[in-house]
Amino acid sequence: MSLKLYDLVGADDRRFSPYCWRVRMALAHKGLAAELVPTCFTDKDKIAFSKQDKVPVLMDGETVVSDSFEIACYLEDAYPDRPSLFGGALGRAEARFINHWVITTVHGPLLRMVIKDILDHLDPKDRAYFRESRTKRLGAPLEEIQAGREARLPEFRAGLAPFRALLAEQPYMCGEAPAFGDYILFGAFQWARVISPFHLLERDDPVHAWRRRMLGLFDGLAEGATGYAETAA
Amino acid sequence: MSLKLYDLVGADDRRFSPYCWRVRMALAHKGLAAELVPTCFTDKDKIAFSKQDKVPVLMDGETVVSDSFEIACYLEDAYPDRPSLFGGALGRAEARFINHWVITTVHGPLLRMVIKDILDHLDPKDRAYFRESRTKRLGAPLEEIQAGREARLPEFRAGLAPFRALLAEQPYMCGEAPAFGDYILFGAFQWARVISPFHLLERDDPVHAWRRRMLGLFDGLAEGATGYAETAA
Repeated sequence: MSLKLYDLVGADDRRFSPYCWRVRMALAHKGLAAELVPTCFTDKDKIAFSKQDKVPVLMDGETVVSDSFEIACYLEDAYPDRPSLFGGALGRAEARFINHWVITTVHGPLLRMVIKDILDHLDPKDRAYFRESRTKRLGAPLEEIQAGREARLPEFRAGLAPFRALLAEQPYMCGEAPAFGDYILFGAFQWARVISPFHLLERDDPVHAWRRRMLGLFDGLAEGATGYAETAA
Repeated sequence: MSLKLYDLVGADDRRFSPYCWRVRMALAHKGLAAELVPTCFTDKDKIAFSKQDKVPVLMDGETVVSDSFEIACYLEDAYPDRPSLFGGALGRAEARFINHWVITTVHGPLLRMVIKDILDHLDPKDRAYFRESRTKRLGAPLEEIQAGREARLPEFRAGLAPFRALLAEQPYMCGEAPAFGDYILFGAFQWARVISPFHLLERDDPVHAWRRRMLGLFDGLAEGATGYAETAA
């Protein structure tokens, strides 16, 4: 068994991809160790063997899998005797909904609140690429997109309302214990934490307490990563 | 086996509660027949035995269960050999998130688009109660709340984005076949369909096609209910 994960990296060894974090948490959940291969945005050659250009990419022996959700499905099917990420086909299907909810409701607004912070924490060789591609994609200079983020915080927090209501009923997205649905959402917060000092959550928010529990999982795997401790304080 | 469901009713035998519809779909999913007991908002005495004042209330022999999610859990546990509503503990936990997402993102805006239509389709004895309690709860006359609903449609439809994205990957919320997560969301659309001619979805919206499939389930259980066919046309 030889697992290798191509993992997005910035300056100071910051590992900031929300999608890579999902996979790292999923690997830990399964009790699997993987060699992490630090990969910059512009290291497209490094992952060309995967026949697409985005991390995470997982290699398991000769098997190559890309896309974080597909990697989770692969791990679930290839290691069925390890703790389950989905709890069956129906749980997997519902996790796909959680995935789309997180992308739409969390990733979208969050990206606009930390995009200049991302730029500032990139490996220098990635900066021109990132600035150019994101300016084009989002239609404005990164400084302008991030500006005024404090004013957008209430709406961001309001978007978390369904999850906050859920936490009044159970401690994790997936019930009494975390599973892939939790890692999907947590990846977003860990992304922000690694590259931004911006406070996203109020201290008395149940989502804040959930994030604390997530940071502590697997001997503090996420908490130990280079980042801004205060974002999660 | 003798099942009885206290089911919200309006004028012309309209069964319009989204929560009761979830339960009716769940019963059909389990292949269980229940006697429906039409219950008005002001028929509080009729369900006083349940020690709370909201339908749905399910009686299964001597067992009394209220709250649609709790009823689904009860059915799942009491009839484990019938088709599953949740697919296990993890699927059940994730369905609770779907429940909160639907309440926040769908029920909230939807109520404000059809609240006067609800009033107009109530049993006359319920109208004063409904007008007074909802005016107080929502802080404005019902006519005023509903007014301008066309302008709010784009935002309502945008709120469905995560589900729409999911439908590009699988035909139902719960995967290849519908389960309780689908019934949770469908209840909202059936609520609107039964009491309002207002068009909620565009014909080329994948959510529209999903709703069509849901209407046809169980020999057209939901489609056959008194309502506005054109809302789902």
